Amino acid sequence: MKSWIDSANGPECHFPVQNLPFGVAKTTDGVKHCVCAIGDKVIDLAMLEANGFFDPEITTPVFNQPALNDFMQLGPHVWQAVRTSLTQLLIENGNPALKDNNSLREQAIVSMSDVEMKLPFKVAEYTDFYAGRQHATNVGTMFRGAENALPPNWLHIPIGYNGRASTVVVSGTPVRRPLGQTKAPDADAPSFGPCKRLDIELEMGAVVGLSSTMGEPLTVAEADEMIFGYVLLNDWSARDIQAWEYQPLGPFQAKAFATSISPWIVTKAALEEFRVSTPDRDKTLLPYLQEPGPMSYNIELEVYMQSGSAKKATRISKTNYNNLYYSAAQQLAHHASSGCKMNTGDLLGSGTISGPDKTQFGSLLEISWDGKEPFTLESGEARSFIEDGDTLTLTGWAQGDGYRIGFGNCEGTILPAIKASM
Amino acid sequence: MKSWIDSANGPECHFPVQNLPFGVAKTTDGVKHCVCAIGDKVIDLAMLEANGFFDPEITTPVFNQPALNDFMQLGPHVWQAVRTSLTQLLIENGNPALKDNNSLREQAIVSMSDVEMKLPFKVAEYTDFYAGRQHATNVGTMFRGAENALPPNWLHIPIGYNGRASTVVVSGTPVRRPLGQTKAPDADAPSFGPCKRLDIELEMGAVVGLSSTMGEPLTVAEADEMIFGYVLLNDWSARDIQAWEYQPLGPFQAKAFATSISPWIVTKAALEEFRVSTPDRDKTLLPYLQEPGPMSYNIELEVYMQSGSAKKATRISKTNYNNLYYSAAQQLAHHASSGCKMNTGDLLGSGTISGPDKTQFGSLLEISWDGKEPFTLESGEARSFIEDGDTLTLTGWAQGDGYRIGFGNCEGTILPAIKASM
Repeated sequence: MKSWIDSANGPECHFPVQNLPFGVAKTTDGVKHCVCAIGDKVIDLAMLEANGFFDPEITTPVFNQPALNDFMQLGPHVWQAVRTSLTQLLIENGNPALKDNNSLREQAIVSMSDVEMKLPFKVAEYTDFYAGRQHATNVGTMFRGAENALPPNWLHIPIGYNGRASTVVVSGTPVRRPLGQTKAPDADAPSFGPCKRLDIELEMGAVVGLSSTMGEPLTVAEADEMIFGYVLLNDWSARDIQAWEYQPLGPFQAKAFATSISPWIVTKAALEEFRVSTPDRDKTLLPYLQEPGPMSYNIELEVYMQSGSAKKATRISKTNYNNLYYSAAQQLAHHASSGCKMNTGDLLGSGTISGPDKTQFGSLLEISWDGKEPFTLESGEARSFIEDGDTLTLTGWAQGDGYRIGFGNCEGTILPAIKASM
Repeated sequence: MKSWIDSANGPECHFPVQNLPFGVAKTTDGVKHCVCAIGDKVIDLAMLEANGFFDPEITTPVFNQPALNDFMQLGPHVWQAVRTSLTQLLIENGNPALKDNNSLREQAIVSMSDVEMKLPFKVAEYTDFYAGRQHATNVGTMFRGAENALPPNWLHIPIGYNGRASTVVVSGTPVRRPLGQTKAPDADAPSFGPCKRLDIELEMGAVVGLSSTMGEPLTVAEADEMIFGYVLLNDWSARDIQAWEYQPLGPFQAKAFATSISPWIVTKAALEEFRVSTPDRDKTLLPYLQEPGPMSYNIELEVYMQSGSAKKATRISKTNYNNLYYSAAQQLAHHASSGCKMNTGDLLGSGTISGPDKTQFGSLLEISWDGKEPFTLESGEARSFIEDGDTLTLTGWAQGDGYRIGFGNCEGTILPAIKASM
């Protein structure tokens, strides 16, 4: 399936006509609109909507807005109708209404390099899970020894904690090194200052499109239906702050300073043909967590790291989303199991995605094995954790036959800590 | 200081003219407005605003709305100006513009019994702390023994975790018993079903009025300035779900199903004369947590419990807010210490407030000592945890000379768990 927009047809292009991810862009006139990506272009959906291209499914405009939330809460029927309309408008020999309308085409199609991508949706609440078995095993081995690596509940529950929505930022936003309270194991008392063990976590985020009702659990199938799409997610982590604060109530300030996501929400519809099953179970799951079909995806993931002075980034990890033990649908079903109301715009971080090999680890904590085994970038610089000026980039795609359903990049550069006057 | 509204002048009235707390009410016409309480009346602030009573401080209307967020983000100068205007309008021999205007008075002053109180603000995010030393000691003693009762970080950090904002409800909202995954210590595998150890936590909530900037910490003094006011807060807790899920990332579904708050936000201004210092420190706090003055309050707190068949509620706890080791200002400063952005409408739960005596404990877990010492209600019924149909009510006030700055009630009745089809 080809598009009449040539740049969409390359075999490594992230945004072929099969993808059509949604985002929010600020165009040259300074206004934020909902857009979709194709090749190296963005399509202004507000303009298509104003021209009646999504009638009759959308009766009240939803795209002339700085966030996708209103569109998302219209639900799967409208998501599919808009996708079908866009596909017809953008494939070769489809609906010529956009292709053959010079003036509309010039207004509605903008070069990706001419727009500024913004946070694609208003994050209602952010929850981060811990669903990567290899990651949980690695971290557990470092901190509790190999025999006690996995906590006893881990094979029964998609373990998660509530994170901070106010600091979810879009790719490209610089991230300031956090300050925090830490205590070295041999110190008498804690101290306050810049984080010394700053890390990433390679994750994906599931974007909840529909709300649930307070007091009513969801089945895994219902949960899957409610998910609008997926983004790349970097759960920046301050390991020294985390080590001192996290007992007994979990990570707090160590994860609160920033979470970066990619600007494009790749829809569940675009990922359908890449569905795979979650891994075999060591323990039978309780019925409320059992999956009625394949709920994970075959998505290649990579992490790149580049110092402020280096000319080129070094790939430091290559792994796959299908390493996760629990799917986003299982996580969402568990999240609602107590009766917790889920809302349009909730963001669920998958947990760090590590594969079994060291080249497949999704955090520097694992790659440098708790800082004890520094690694070397192609520039010759050694790293255990992130230094000021370093840029970390996540990327990923599902590989189709001659095309890719890509997620673009999720990137962030670390700024030095501010001088606290306290 | 007396009001011309007689019901405000009784010595036990929660809402004298010295209080003037803010809330949101649905009046008989079905519309939600911002209101304030005096005696047994509510004052429709939208109507006073429309009549120019808050000029020139408020230029764009903020009270003709279903939430106080827009008002809160105008900041302390406007909060004080509105308080001063209201005081003048409501005291004896003050500004007669409301008292002497029959038609306005009849429209703007409504009997409290004729309105339905709603959630007073849109909860941006909800964070729950663990700042009660006696509570942390009691719980730690039960689960880890007396020697390890307080975690090593507890005397240095106001420990907190992010909670779920989507299920914060106003007093009077019934609460459904949650379902969840639990595992008895002697069971081979976990099971899923209704919570068997349902509990309350007596807390107060601090309502953040102003936002902070991402990446910029706050001093304790700045944090105190940003707090708009306080509410009663019941952090409903499913102890059996919590015990199985909370390692290693903290409470999740055990706290996610409901949090109840009282409908009236008592302003910081109304509490000024009840400021007291937090308790003496065992360990010197790091400078970023040190208080420049008294940041806690002398507030009497009580908990009542009543079964569905009982005629009368039993008081099961009587304690004081000043038992908290960390103030809300310290909690907020710690919350922002990593650079975490705080927002208008953030809600900070204080942590369970227990005093040293058993009659002063703030949770059933403590009162029944992990369920091992059931207690008896005045109706003769025994309880360790909450049974279906039970109503739990928190109340509290600061005792002035001949008047009370009251918080009203925070009440919830437990409905049976739903039958899950899963």
